[in-house]
Amino acid sequence: MDQRLSIVTLGVADVAAATAFYQRLGWTPSAANSNDEITFFQAGGMIFALYGHTALAKDVGIDAGDPETFSGVTLAFNARGKDEVDSVLKEAETAGATIVKAAEDTFWGGYSGYFRDPDGHLWEVAWNPFFPIAEDGSVALPG
Amino acid sequence: MDQRLSIVTLGVADVAAATAFYQRLGWTPSAANSNDEITFFQAGGMIFALYGHTALAKDVGIDAGDPETFSGVTLAFNARGKDEVDSVLKEAETAGATIVKAAEDTFWGGYSGYFRDPDGHLWEVAWNPFFPIAEDGSVALPG
Repeated sequence: MDQRLSIVTLGVADVAAATAFYQRLGWTPSAANSNDEITFFQAGGMIFALYGHTALAKDVGIDAGDPETFSGVTLAFNARGKDEVDSVLKEAETAGATIVKAAEDTFWGGYSGYFRDPDGHLWEVAWNPFFPIAEDGSVALPG
Repeated sequence: MDQRLSIVTLGVADVAAATAFYQRLGWTPSAANSNDEITFFQAGGMIFALYGHTALAKDVGIDAGDPETFSGVTLAFNARGKDEVDSVLKEAETAGATIVKAAEDTFWGGYSGYFRDPDGHLWEVAWNPFFPIAEDGSVALPG
């Protein structure tokens, strides 16, 4: 697993309201990639996202209502292909992580799974053909 | 507040054990900047840190034991000076954030405060004279 972090996603009660807060801070969402369900912001070589708290837990496949098991934050490692998603998840499991969701094709056209690190922090490992990864590992929102 | 994220810090039960997990994933901590209390990893243009769960809550000034109010994850925005820390915290408050800890000089030689965004996510706003910020906003661990 390369030493990088592609996306930080915060679970929020209301995506529009949360987006408006960050806009008041001076941030500009990526109009080309955001929609009513999710907002993406380019943040240097990574991406910052706001997604519904319940929708985010559902994406992981866990209960949104238990703060002991769902902190409301996920980190994502974007891989360069499906095979790399599989190998990183395997690597994480071997290193002591728990696979929370086996990798599968996603409704948005990618491929993704989740693991918990030994402290319970959630990592998505995803292949997203729409968000190109540069040579240096940075990820840039298109458009 | 510039549109960037400097540090993601995960609260962990045991810093050495958590560090060993990420090392098994192939990550290399910054030896020059890490110690028994905290581990820093350079992750592209940002920093990924592992810090004791209780110590992290204490740094924020909140109760570590309540997962409703402490998710175990903090985001940090590193500013270019103390005055920028003050102005970003003020900006966040005006935008609807709650100031959890007013900015103050820190034991490690910096200056830092915390706000909660409207969904409760914790942001540290810090001036860290030891971690230089490049023109493009990226932050690099020295050494």
